[in-house]
Amino acid sequence: MRRFLPKSLGLNPNFNLTGYADMKGCSCKVPQVKLQEYLRDVGIDMSQMESPDSSIVPVGNGMVLCSTTDFFNPCVADPYLQGQIAACNVLSDLYALGISTCTNMLMVLAVSKLIDENDKKIATSQMMKGFNDMATKAGTTVTGGQSIINPWPIIGGVGMSVVPETQVIYPRGAQPGDMLVLTKPLGCQLAVNLYEWFYYKPHQLEKLTTKPSEEIVNEIFNKACDSMGSLNRKAAELMHKYGSKGATDVTGFGILGHSRNLASVQHADVDIVIHTLPTFAGAIQFDKQVHNYRFIEGFSAETSGGLLVILPRENAQSYIDDFERQEGRQAWIVGEVVPGTKQARVVENPKIINV
Amino acid sequence: MRRFLPKSLGLNPNFNLTGYADMKGCSCKVPQVKLQEYLRDVGIDMSQMESPDSSIVPVGNGMVLCSTTDFFNPCVADPYLQGQIAACNVLSDLYALGISTCTNMLMVLAVSKLIDENDKKIATSQMMKGFNDMATKAGTTVTGGQSIINPWPIIGGVGMSVVPETQVIYPRGAQPGDMLVLTKPLGCQLAVNLYEWFYYKPHQLEKLTTKPSEEIVNEIFNKACDSMGSLNRKAAELMHKYGSKGATDVTGFGILGHSRNLASVQHADVDIVIHTLPTFAGAIQFDKQVHNYRFIEGFSAETSGGLLVILPRENAQSYIDDFERQEGRQAWIVGEVVPGTKQARVVENPKIINV
Repeated sequence: MRRFLPKSLGLNPNFNLTGYADMKGCSCKVPQVKLQEYLRDVGIDMSQMESPDSSIVPVGNGMVLCSTTDFFNPCVADPYLQGQIAACNVLSDLYALGISTCTNMLMVLAVSKLIDENDKKIATSQMMKGFNDMATKAGTTVTGGQSIINPWPIIGGVGMSVVPETQVIYPRGAQPGDMLVLTKPLGCQLAVNLYEWFYYKPHQLEKLTTKPSEEIVNEIFNKACDSMGSLNRKAAELMHKYGSKGATDVTGFGILGHSRNLASVQHADVDIVIHTLPTFAGAIQFDKQVHNYRFIEGFSAETSGGLLVILPRENAQSYIDDFERQEGRQAWIVGEVVPGTKQARVVENPKIINV
Repeated sequence: MRRFLPKSLGLNPNFNLTGYADMKGCSCKVPQVKLQEYLRDVGIDMSQMESPDSSIVPVGNGMVLCSTTDFFNPCVADPYLQGQIAACNVLSDLYALGISTCTNMLMVLAVSKLIDENDKKIATSQMMKGFNDMATKAGTTVTGGQSIINPWPIIGGVGMSVVPETQVIYPRGAQPGDMLVLTKPLGCQLAVNLYEWFYYKPHQLEKLTTKPSEEIVNEIFNKACDSMGSLNRKAAELMHKYGSKGATDVTGFGILGHSRNLASVQHADVDIVIHTLPTFAGAIQFDKQVHNYRFIEGFSAETSGGLLVILPRENAQSYIDDFERQEGRQAWIVGEVVPGTKQARVVENPKIINV
């Protein structure tokens, strides 16, 4: 992982992109309950959507246009890495449908008016470059976008894919007995906040009874950055090979929030039960002490999180093995599908896997 | 035009959506010069783009995916109208390519954390409803989106269209002698600011030597609202009938900014010369007195402005006549194409048409 050295880029030595917004990454999303209220007022019922992540619209000749937009406040100090994370995060909404090719992307950008002119120019270019480079890595192109001035920086984009409908794995096919596999660890919100407290807001750490060592803070943060900056593309490709019955990507609503969305769109009367929470080793004790993010309850926001993939029971481990072999990263069985009423829950004492 | 009565919607009687952001409408765009700087740093050359407004990407079978995103801070007090304006503004980027059908839209929303809870709920639902209703009016559907929390409210969206490439009018075919037709008056920035000063910030009017009457303020503002809330769809359809050689929509960079973008993508060595500025009667004197927005120079930001359409000289008036007959709104010849170097300019004493 690249170490962020502001000075080497011409930025102020203490430049920190997250310092310009009160919220971090996907935690800036309008809370799910509020959003549903607003949508109800407008007459839109989310459970009638084909997918909670992307829109799927037929465009003739058996083709569909899948599209998504996602954007958020920075969650890391380094604007280049931030741009990369934002692009990964947008693409995950397409990957969740088993779509591994993106036709084109647009960039969504708000430049903070609070950043001084020199830092603003460098940081904005770096963010755009990170976004653009990650799009290239994913085999797609950024063809346009929109940029505005705002108090808080915002970065994100739009991802679109025109594909044969047969290539789309609609996330509605869960059956009792199916397993749920997660392709990235949880705990990004803990990781990025712990890092910020340690380096930029040490007074926040006074809440903690055990003060973390610099080594631990860096280790957790670096793992989180590696994870957020990784594409879920391979996870999407393998969904086809192992007969996945649908997936969602885990972001701002936490693993439970997104499990609920996934459960709500199922055809069968099933529930999703999450029994395992893989997380960055050492991260969970800080949530327990601060108890702000409700990690154990499944609500802690993720940014550019993993895919939560529904797989036939007999294929779950093969999917994981293949993923780890090809991608060099771990994946875990974190839950299962049981008969139910299209709800989701985290069991009372979930198993914690320290990654 | 619908009069905005906050109380009748359950809002605080003095609720004003524009009161929560320092900038208004498309004037919040990152200035063109800055944007070009950022893009240069990333290695992107805007003049190489197919269109300054939308992206055009081939998707097989002779079809292309045209896509655009646009969003901004509110420019009117009424959240429902604001939603309508935002949808019109997004669609204009597709209309500028002569594309009159939009496959689907996504909504881009930032909910202001500064608005009190009750007003926030109502105003957000109203904005979403306005956006959604205008999409319906345009014959398309809002299929998704993203909503975040932010100091300033933001509203906008994404528009996508999968169409046969033969239906796209690439904006690159201008020839010397062609005329430029504008399908909405200019001066929205003047109109919305004048209105806000009069009703919400009267101290700002102290700059003015002649104080405007309430009647004039309302008249200018209502005309601007009608204009911003009108779709450019018919203008797009008629581009085909009258052999248009391309168009752009006039928004945040002002008529000159967008003329420059349009000129820069031409195949032929031509310049665009703007000689006429149609504007809301009475608006221009306030620009002259305040001289903030550089209206006469062509820089005053528009929000959901008209299409600036390149037409063969012999067809310009027929286009206008047909447009007025079908749409019930005026259009004007505002400029012409001359031999040049892909630049644009406003003549020194442009003709002002009071609308």
